[in-house]
Amino acid sequence: MSTEKDFVKEICSRDVDFSQWYIDVVRKAELADYAPVRGCMVIRPYGYTIWELVRDALDDEIKATGHQNAYFPLLIPESFLQKEADHVEGFAPQVGWVTAGGNEELEERLALRPTSEAIICEMYSKWIRSWRDLPVMINQWANVIRWEKVTRLFLRTTEFLWQEGHTAHETREEAEEEALKMLDVYDDVLRSVMAIPAYKGIKTEREKFPGAEQTYTVEALMPDGRALQAGTSHNLGQHFAKVFNITYLDRNDEQSYVYQTSWGVTTRLIGALVMVHGDDYGLKLPPRCAPYQVVIVPIIYEESKSGILEKCNEILNELRGAGVRVHLDDRDGYTPGWKFNEWELRGVPLRLEFGPKDLEKGSVLTVRRDTREKQPIPLDDLNRELGELLDRIQVDMLEAATKYTVDHTTTITDRAQFLLTFKGRPGIVRAPWCRSGACEGKMQEETGATIRFLKLEPESAAGEKCVGCGEDAEHWAYFAKAY
Amino acid sequence: MSTEKDFVKEICSRDVDFSQWYIDVVRKAELADYAPVRGCMVIRPYGYTIWELVRDALDDEIKATGHQNAYFPLLIPESFLQKEADHVEGFAPQVGWVTAGGNEELEERLALRPTSEAIICEMYSKWIRSWRDLPVMINQWANVIRWEKVTRLFLRTTEFLWQEGHTAHETREEAEEEALKMLDVYDDVLRSVMAIPAYKGIKTEREKFPGAEQTYTVEALMPDGRALQAGTSHNLGQHFAKVFNITYLDRNDEQSYVYQTSWGVTTRLIGALVMVHGDDYGLKLPPRCAPYQVVIVPIIYEESKSGILEKCNEILNELRGAGVRVHLDDRDGYTPGWKFNEWELRGVPLRLEFGPKDLEKGSVLTVRRDTREKQPIPLDDLNRELGELLDRIQVDMLEAATKYTVDHTTTITDRAQFLLTFKGRPGIVRAPWCRSGACEGKMQEETGATIRFLKLEPESAAGEKCVGCGEDAEHWAYFAKAY
Repeated sequence: MSTEKDFVKEICSRDVDFSQWYIDVVRKAELADYAPVRGCMVIRPYGYTIWELVRDALDDEIKATGHQNAYFPLLIPESFLQKEADHVEGFAPQVGWVTAGGNEELEERLALRPTSEAIICEMYSKWIRSWRDLPVMINQWANVIRWEKVTRLFLRTTEFLWQEGHTAHETREEAEEEALKMLDVYDDVLRSVMAIPAYKGIKTEREKFPGAEQTYTVEALMPDGRALQAGTSHNLGQHFAKVFNITYLDRNDEQSYVYQTSWGVTTRLIGALVMVHGDDYGLKLPPRCAPYQVVIVPIIYEESKSGILEKCNEILNELRGAGVRVHLDDRDGYTPGWKFNEWELRGVPLRLEFGPKDLEKGSVLTVRRDTREKQPIPLDDLNRELGELLDRIQVDMLEAATKYTVDHTTTITDRAQFLLTFKGRPGIVRAPWCRSGACEGKMQEETGATIRFLKLEPESAAGEKCVGCGEDAEHWAYFAKAY
Repeated sequence: MSTEKDFVKEICSRDVDFSQWYIDVVRKAELADYAPVRGCMVIRPYGYTIWELVRDALDDEIKATGHQNAYFPLLIPESFLQKEADHVEGFAPQVGWVTAGGNEELEERLALRPTSEAIICEMYSKWIRSWRDLPVMINQWANVIRWEKVTRLFLRTTEFLWQEGHTAHETREEAEEEALKMLDVYDDVLRSVMAIPAYKGIKTEREKFPGAEQTYTVEALMPDGRALQAGTSHNLGQHFAKVFNITYLDRNDEQSYVYQTSWGVTTRLIGALVMVHGDDYGLKLPPRCAPYQVVIVPIIYEESKSGILEKCNEILNELRGAGVRVHLDDRDGYTPGWKFNEWELRGVPLRLEFGPKDLEKGSVLTVRRDTREKQPIPLDDLNRELGELLDRIQVDMLEAATKYTVDHTTTITDRAQFLLTFKGRPGIVRAPWCRSGACEGKMQEETGATIRFLKLEPESAAGEKCVGCGEDAEHWAYFAKAY
């Protein structure tokens, strides 16, 4: 929906102003736009199609691991939210409140869900009676509202879309296994679909989900040196079960509390996708989450126009038949060069250029978005070679992002060097930590960095000194400035 | 998640109390449950899976007709909603209002979307510049809030799920064509997926969507003699375009207003599905929207248990491999009879019973949920015969519902008889009407029935007298009491 004039405006260079570059790409590639209400966004069709591709891949894995989808209400009575003390403290400052319906004031304020533990636990307490009802494995796809002071398209918005899984189990071990299994699912979708490498880790007490016993995280490094929490999975223990009285008759005929988990990822993933792969030409999409994996741009001269278009349509249909998401840009009134720019901006992984010379040679020129490499492919082997090329792009993009992450993860043991390093944005810094929350807070004040995670099996830092307080360190922690 | 004790409770008979029967089925088949907030519901996994099947089928057709999905915000400034006069008058009494975010009062109240014309038109006015940007063909799947005084699970709830399409076109003809095309899509999904026959028609001025030029409807008859509006499609003309200033540079280089449509169906469809097909044994699902199309119930005796279960698992895997949604109910501690009841209640279209005698004979006993017919099928031809049987059930269920609708659509020309008939619930009554809105209102007061639709090409009733006022009639109108 751009006219030629709109489109040619520059995107800010990534090195000049990363934040401005990000917003320019999101808006000019038509992923999202600002809504009239501060902090809210409109997800435009191109951005929403990416979300659908990620969502469907994740939904398949959620179902393959034994979960079913359901839908719980948006509106939650204030009294429910207040039942779990940590939970209310964590979320109260961000809640949107409904106080009137139609022309009537409500007797009790209703919260717009900031997350659904409270309402789901209430229902579970009614549904679960016996060990035969367990495990309960439910997921929901929904919108969520959290009033945010500083917002940015996809990365932090007042309303966002997400999935939230909520499970109930007989034993602590089962809940722990579930929480870790879903962390693996997130890690897998991030890597295999979005070509985003992430660290799997545990959050510290300070950083964990309000009300959880343990929070696991997949943490990805962005090219500006900041970390982004891409998904979390919580072992809730029996905290919520005790507050919401979710009991069941166990195998010994006694009343027991269930063990629970919850886990979620959000539309913020689209923001990560933009940042991890994009460049000064715009978006760069991995084939598995690209609305169009291939765009065909005909090179047209008046005398050969109909022959070229005819062949382009043949290619289109052949690829479509093979299940490739492909688009033929046969618009009049735009030059091929203009079209190249537009589809680069929109991040289409592979461009096919096809003109009279290609017709003569019986081949088509392919141009990769990720490396800008050009390579002719013979038309009679198009499907196979194109499929291989798309697979290669997917793999190469993950490899490039992984290399960046590894290169920007450094180990620092010296306090002075640690403080100096965080004057900039060094990426992820592995450093010895004494495990005191006070020390963690002090380091955040001094550097602006937080502990993003400890390894799932925390690494002993015996013999090292904590970079915060200089006392004996216990574990290696991974610090970064974060989104 | 039922224990044996819960489950054996009776469902109220459909003939004794249709409303109670409906609620019993919805709750006992675990389609939905009441939420703590009045008028809100929880859609449980079994009900949500039906919704997913309907949604995915409809989404395929929406995409095949050239639309893309997007997502617009839940929160709409009050001032936006007030721009279109009819629109605000129609929706204001039902709006939920957000007045605080976090700990701060908002300067302007925010509406929870009751529908999204206002917010979407605002965005379209920014995005659409030239005729090259048209048509805009966008759909969204979302939750909607409308404060309702009287609510019923699925049929009328404060929050519901729906899709809403919003398109913009260059000409009135294109918009009209689009509105009618989407009506056809709804009609097709209702029939082919849900086995629900519907009348396609036009709403009267009184009954049309607030702000629309013309509202088209698919109207289905329920077994209690009430009609249910299953979906609507609106030709909005230029009403919203003029209010929200959606202009574009047309092909003559002049500023023009776009022509628009909007169209939607909701989770209320699940309520229609329950009512149209269900009976005193519970739910009856057409195969195309059944979470399980087939359930296998092993008939087990201690001595032959492992052999039977082994073969049942083989059948399970064979059917699953063929793409059938199939479940093996191998629970211990429940009798086959108990399981038969439970899966009948849950409406599974086809039950397979398999015991030692079947193993001997190399066949399996099939029991249809719709007709309760039993038929053995040889195991070596299972896939083919089962596929045919499922297809036949789908067709037969549509036929049965169509017969009911036809049988309960009657023509009445006499005013006295018309009034008498509507002392009961006669279904749909075709009667001559003068086309005056005042007369339409009077008839509603007298009978409780409303004009549900006129045929898409309204049928001339020349020579007849209006059943309302006795003056010359213009068209045949279709009256019914309605949900």
